Amino acid sequence: MFHKQHPPAGSRPGTLALPPDSPPPQIRVYQYSAESLAEHAIGKVDELVPFAASDLTTWVDVRGLGDEAVLRRLAEIFQIDPLALEDAVNLPQRAKSEAREHHQVIIARLPQVGEDGSIDTPQVCLLLGKHHLITFQERPLGAFDPVRERLRSGIGPIRSFGADYLAYALIDTVIDRYYPPAESLSNELEDLEDEIAERESPEALARLHDIRRQLVVLRRIGWPQREAITSLIRDQTPFVTDEVRSYLRDTQDHIAQIVELIDSCREMTVSLMDIHLSAVSQRTNEVMKVLTIVASIFIPLTFIAGVYGMNFEYMPELHRRGAYPMVIATMVAVAVGMVAWFWHRGWIGRGRRSGE
Amino acid sequence: MFHKQHPPAGSRPGTLALPPDSPPPQIRVYQYSAESLAEHAIGKVDELVPFAASDLTTWVDVRGLGDEAVLRRLAEIFQIDPLALEDAVNLPQRAKSEAREHHQVIIARLPQVGEDGSIDTPQVCLLLGKHHLITFQERPLGAFDPVRERLRSGIGPIRSFGADYLAYALIDTVIDRYYPPAESLSNELEDLEDEIAERESPEALARLHDIRRQLVVLRRIGWPQREAITSLIRDQTPFVTDEVRSYLRDTQDHIAQIVELIDSCREMTVSLMDIHLSAVSQRTNEVMKVLTIVASIFIPLTFIAGVYGMNFEYMPELHRRGAYPMVIATMVAVAVGMVAWFWHRGWIGRGRRSGE
Amino acid sequence: MFHKQHPPAGSRPGTLALPPDSPPPQIRVYQYSAESLAEHAIGKVDELVPFAASDLTTWVDVRGLGDEAVLRRLAEIFQIDPLALEDAVNLPQRAKSEAREHHQVIIARLPQVGEDGSIDTPQVCLLLGKHHLITFQERPLGAFDPVRERLRSGIGPIRSFGADYLAYALIDTVIDRYYPPAESLSNELEDLEDEIAERESPEALARLHDIRRQLVVLRRIGWPQREAITSLIRDQTPFVTDEVRSYLRDTQDHIAQIVELIDSCREMTVSLMDIHLSAVSQRTNEVMKVLTIVASIFIPLTFIAGVYGMNFEYMPELHRRGAYPMVIATMVAVAVGMVAWFWHRGWIGRGRRSGE
Amino acid sequence: MFHKQHPPAGSRPGTLALPPDSPPPQIRVYQYSAESLAEHAIGKVDELVPFAASDLTTWVDVRGLGDEAVLRRLAEIFQIDPLALEDAVNLPQRAKSEAREHHQVIIARLPQVGEDGSIDTPQVCLLLGKHHLITFQERPLGAFDPVRERLRSGIGPIRSFGADYLAYALIDTVIDRYYPPAESLSNELEDLEDEIAERESPEALARLHDIRRQLVVLRRIGWPQREAITSLIRDQTPFVTDEVRSYLRDTQDHIAQIVELIDSCREMTVSLMDIHLSAVSQRTNEVMKVLTIVASIFIPLTFIAGVYGMNFEYMPELHRRGAYPMVIATMVAVAVGMVAWFWHRGWIGRGRRSGE
Amino acid sequence: MFHKQHPPAGSRPGTLALPPDSPPPQIRVYQYSAESLAEHAIGKVDELVPFAASDLTTWVDVRGLGDEAVLRRLAEIFQIDPLALEDAVNLPQRAKSEAREHHQVIIARLPQVGEDGSIDTPQVCLLLGKHHLITFQERPLGAFDPVRERLRSGIGPIRSFGADYLAYALIDTVIDRYYPPAESLSNELEDLEDEIAERESPEALARLHDIRRQLVVLRRIGWPQREAITSLIRDQTPFVTDEVRSYLRDTQDHIAQIVELIDSCREMTVSLMDIHLSAVSQRTNEVMKVLTIVASIFIPLTFIAGVYGMNFEYMPELHRRGAYPMVIATMVAVAVGMVAWFWHRGWIGRGRRSGE
Repeated sequence: MFHKQHPPAGSRPGTLALPPDSPPPQIRVYQYSAESLAEHAIGKVDELVPFAASDLTTWVDVRGLGDEAVLRRLAEIFQIDPLALEDAVNLPQRAKSEAREHHQVIIARLPQVGEDGSIDTPQVCLLLGKHHLITFQERPLGAFDPVRERLRSGIGPIRSFGADYLAYALIDTVIDRYYPPAESLSNELEDLEDEIAERESPEALARLHDIRRQLVVLRRIGWPQREAITSLIRDQTPFVTDEVRSYLRDTQDHIAQIVELIDSCREMTVSLMDIHLSAVSQRTNEVMKVLTIVASIFIPLTFIAGVYGMNFEYMPELHRRGAYPMVIATMVAVAVGMVAWFWHRGWIGRGRRSGE
Repeated sequence: MFHKQHPPAGSRPGTLALPPDSPPPQIRVYQYSAESLAEHAIGKVDELVPFAASDLTTWVDVRGLGDEAVLRRLAEIFQIDPLALEDAVNLPQRAKSEAREHHQVIIARLPQVGEDGSIDTPQVCLLLGKHHLITFQERPLGAFDPVRERLRSGIGPIRSFGADYLAYALIDTVIDRYYPPAESLSNELEDLEDEIAERESPEALARLHDIRRQLVVLRRIGWPQREAITSLIRDQTPFVTDEVRSYLRDTQDHIAQIVELIDSCREMTVSLMDIHLSAVSQRTNEVMKVLTIVASIFIPLTFIAGVYGMNFEYMPELHRRGAYPMVIATMVAVAVGMVAWFWHRGWIGRGRRSGE
Repeated sequence: MFHKQHPPAGSRPGTLALPPDSPPPQIRVYQYSAESLAEHAIGKVDELVPFAASDLTTWVDVRGLGDEAVLRRLAEIFQIDPLALEDAVNLPQRAKSEAREHHQVIIARLPQVGEDGSIDTPQVCLLLGKHHLITFQERPLGAFDPVRERLRSGIGPIRSFGADYLAYALIDTVIDRYYPPAESLSNELEDLEDEIAERESPEALARLHDIRRQLVVLRRIGWPQREAITSLIRDQTPFVTDEVRSYLRDTQDHIAQIVELIDSCREMTVSLMDIHLSAVSQRTNEVMKVLTIVASIFIPLTFIAGVYGMNFEYMPELHRRGAYPMVIATMVAVAVGMVAWFWHRGWIGRGRRSGE
Repeated sequence: MFHKQHPPAGSRPGTLALPPDSPPPQIRVYQYSAESLAEHAIGKVDELVPFAASDLTTWVDVRGLGDEAVLRRLAEIFQIDPLALEDAVNLPQRAKSEAREHHQVIIARLPQVGEDGSIDTPQVCLLLGKHHLITFQERPLGAFDPVRERLRSGIGPIRSFGADYLAYALIDTVIDRYYPPAESLSNELEDLEDEIAERESPEALARLHDIRRQLVVLRRIGWPQREAITSLIRDQTPFVTDEVRSYLRDTQDHIAQIVELIDSCREMTVSLMDIHLSAVSQRTNEVMKVLTIVASIFIPLTFIAGVYGMNFEYMPELHRRGAYPMVIATMVAVAVGMVAWFWHRGWIGRGRRSGE
Repeated sequence: MFHKQHPPAGSRPGTLALPPDSPPPQIRVYQYSAESLAEHAIGKVDELVPFAASDLTTWVDVRGLGDEAVLRRLAEIFQIDPLALEDAVNLPQRAKSEAREHHQVIIARLPQVGEDGSIDTPQVCLLLGKHHLITFQERPLGAFDPVRERLRSGIGPIRSFGADYLAYALIDTVIDRYYPPAESLSNELEDLEDEIAERESPEALARLHDIRRQLVVLRRIGWPQREAITSLIRDQTPFVTDEVRSYLRDTQDHIAQIVELIDSCREMTVSLMDIHLSAVSQRTNEVMKVLTIVASIFIPLTFIAGVYGMNFEYMPELHRRGAYPMVIATMVAVAVGMVAWFWHRGWIGRGRRSGE
């Protein structure tokens, strides 16, 4: 449910706890203004030096965290202070937004639904400076691709704004990633409703528990995310302009909406569980009724038959002519009486109609 | 439970994600003062230009969002900034109130109960300027009709106030739309009580789950609505006068009352579910008692009969004259003893009285 | 559970939605100083004019809201602004305290337990001006009688203070009305405990659900009441002196105490419901044990008897002399073995002791 | 659960609602400095006059509230304003801390566990003036004895500080009284765990409900107590020095710790109730299994025996030599098959191991 | 669950309630700068005097609280005020951070999982002065060992910073101790899921309750820990520099993450308990079905056999040739009919597939 590869207790701060299976960093730089965009694949980290000094808006996109030397050199070039670097590469962390000397550090986590339905929550980090934005991903996640496309195509306002707008666009993209799993869980819940109420279905129960766990995971990353965006908007950080701040308010609404949807879903899972428990009880009740009806009718009859199966010498009834038909008639009367009583209590006929 | 036609993750802000099935906009303009009201159906969007410059109070009522060009031109005419326009037409959004440069953006959602009992929550958007109010509805909802009537009839203070009062009147009308579904759910819950306690009723259970879901939906839109109105009152927006603010306080009380009613109902659903579970258990208990009583009386008797049905040659009892009546007497004694014991335990007579 | 006679959605503010079955207003005026009290029954509303101008402390007590003309004229005489008047006569409203130009508007609701145990929550409204207090009741509720008596008798400080103290005294009286239902529910819960644990009692379950609903109603009116009094104390309204404010703090403690008592009771209802469910399960378990013991003992015996009731020609046992006693001995042995095993498992004897 | 002897609704403030069964006040005065302590038993209330004017630290300890005249005279002597006096003697009140003109009024309630396990919550009131502290107890509670001892012995800093430190010492003593019941409930819960999981034990269930109720009572007094101490620390009251304030912070931690312990216990009661319900269900399941196994094995066998007990003339099997052994063999085969199937399903052997 | 060795109620503040089984203090001093580190084992407490005056960063590490005289002398040397000393040695206390005259007092508690799975929560106290840090542990806990190693090795920034950074490093180490138990509980929960859904397993239930209790304990210490760190960051204490404050923000995120993980786990335990209850009910249902099927098929057949086992003289069927085969055929028909009906209801075949 939660696996943290945190460094051993008490390891010194300043340690970079690089994720062990992270690929070596691929670095791409995008430098743009309203008119143009230059895209560079960086081979050696020192090629970044000229970009750090530039006044053009610059996006340094780092995918993979597998080489400490590269990361440290990059930090040096862009004056990233050690704690900010740690935040960027140590994971998993709580979503947050924090001002450092030269950067606003923004940590976000996005949900990724695996093929087996498990939810992975990789982390992205944005370091927002005055003119540049540096992003780190544990491994290539594809989360930023739509923004990359918009940058390249130059459609929309993205290239007219500075690095803060780019950061906003990326955060917004990350938050949008919460919708699909939340909505798919919501839909699954609706599907489960019919299944649970109508049939015996242990699979449905297992699925319900699964949905519950996924909702718990989503909420655990979604809630700090909401706080992080709220604090990014509210704190008077110099790295974000008022205009971009009002864009972020929209993103804030989105994550609020998602958290509310998740909470609604959680409430529905409780209701469904109640339905399930009630359905099982109801079915047991039905089973018991069948047994009770069958047994209550035939056990007394069997007893009557048993009486006249006794081998006493002196049983006058046995020798009467009409005795046999009379006993059969009594049996029928008892059976009919039982059935009538069960019908009266609603266990037969009426009961079955409402009970099925 | 929740279907958002949000644009694909990472689509650029500034994109209008027009709802795909929205009809083309019908625009009506109402321009009024205390003395007069002029109503115009707008054919071409450019006819709006003179209204934008007017100092008279003007209401531009847009129903249908199906034409991006029209909406963009309208935004230009009334100096609606792009984010405000997006808020107006992208849906569904969270209820909110936000100040932009030339407008206060107010988003509200109203519950509409469908014929099948499902709750739809269409969105309306109000852009409140200094002298004008522009409203957007996804499709003609009829939500504003009562206010339109009041405007036309000129009764009451509505035409003596400015655009902010009109906005208040519309918001108040929207909030009043929450009462009918909330109250009808509350009434249904009361009806369910008798049904659940008295009869086996799987329909009641399904209905209960349904009510629960509707309450969850109502609360999910009602809660942000409350926040939105609170922030509209509290924030020092220049678009709303103090007088209208005190009117809004009344609306705030209404939505608070609704949310509290919804929460009460949710608590009652939990109680009803408990009652239901208890009733099912109780009924199973009743069924079991019948079986136990019948079986406990007749199984021992049948055994006795079985003993004397054995075919041993040397069973002296079989040949005694009084044996048969004595066995019958024993059986009666056993049966009476059993019944007495069950009566003593309260399963017969006393038990049935309290158990039904 | 909640019936609001709110005006139709979108009706114009300023409409008075007079409760349809409210009697015509009876107006009494009490004008007093420390030394004297003058009490007037008002026949025509214009007789109120001289009181409005007086500097003596004046209480205008309006019971019944059945005549709009009278109410509007009264509002005119005492400079009640339209929204305040609406607050006073439209109901039910949420408890609140709000400052208007000439009055502090205070809405309170008091619980009235009907003969059938249902809780009604009529509303009273206090409009507190500088020197006068106007109170409105939907119908004569008797809620203010004790204060009226104190005024008349002149005992205690009530006549030495101004209108704000009178308002405090009335609010305090209203809040005191919450104690009896809250305490009686609390006592009923204690009585239910024994009943639920000891006996099958569907009535107890129904009663428990009923208490739960009443607690929900009490809490729904009690919680806003608490907020309203808190805001009356905290807001810097000019109509309430600091001295009276410190009296109100006491009232605030009372309503807090009541809300806490209600919450405690709600928690106990949950516990009682658990007890009930557990008791039903336990009883089913007992019933099953009886059946199982009886059936497990006699079914095998019946089988043995059945074997020797078979009519095969070649069954050597049937012709042996000692066979019958031996079979009976075997049966006894089986029965004793079964009983011993059940005793060992604690289902007989030991089990019955703890299970009853 | 909660019995308030509040005055009738609407009784005038300023009324002293003396607890009816309170003994007449015993008054003791302690006047001390770092060097000395003078202790006086007061016979007539006017003997207190000289103490009121003294600059020495003075503690007036009033036990019993049974004489209104004495209390009113005492209030006069020490300039206790009427509301403060009411707070001191009307009970039960919510724990609180409030500044009056000449005194800080502090109300606390302490839990007293009766011999029958019920929790009583008597109230103590502290009126803290500049140089004196007046304490009221409904009846002699013994709650202050440890502090009295410390005063007399002169050990520790208590006599070097002023009246505010004395007040702190008394409050701290009161809060320490919460530990024993909270801890004893916590211990009882641990004992119940084994009992509930292992045995049928209706007593355990009753005990659990009892613990739950006691926790609810403790929390209802503990929570306002926490608030009261917090507000005593935070409010800038002139009666408490900064130094004593930092002592109080310790007391605040204690009550917070207690409330957290109570909440933990409440959570454990829920878990235990679940365990109990599960255990009852499990036991019913076990009972059913025994019945099902016995019945499923013997009912078919009895049927077979029944078939060959029929008296048809033409049943060729009856006359075959080997028929009887063959039928017996068949019966054994059926029984073995049944047992094997139950063993396969885990109801026999494997099932019993895990099921017991 | 919670055992406090608090001093008897009302014992004087200033009392040191030394834990009775605490070993005598072992004191070690670490004095360091970026370049060097001196480590001293202190035999007699007066050897500490020179360190108190030094301007070098000094860490006084006290393990064991078993000698009051030593602790009092130490307090004198380092100007620890009495309340701070009490905080350090009286236990268990709530985690907190509080400014005193010469020290910031920080109390933390760390979870230690015993071999039997119980969670112990020993306390550590940090007194942070301008140039020195004094730490107290009830007994040698090993919690600080990693930091000690870092100090000795001189790797990382730890020796370049002052005492506040050292305090941070120690707190961070303590918080890291929360991860292992929280994560192990989270993992255990995942393991339990399969066990609970698939098998009858009372051990699983007991384990679940155990996990629940451990989560409750973890949360009870974790939550105040979070508050304490938040207040350490937020309060403007002069003992912590802004730089270290930003390091602490990281620690704050960690404890927030832990608390959120714990809450998620608690939610999953509720879900698992539901699953368990549902599984038991489901199994009872299965058992009942088997019984019902067997009994419903064979009881009627036995009755038929019983009828023809009666000994009436005049039963014409008994003498017909084909009667026996016809009765057998009837029996088969009844049995097949029953089976078909059960199959139709899904209790056989289809039912078993989904029901297992």
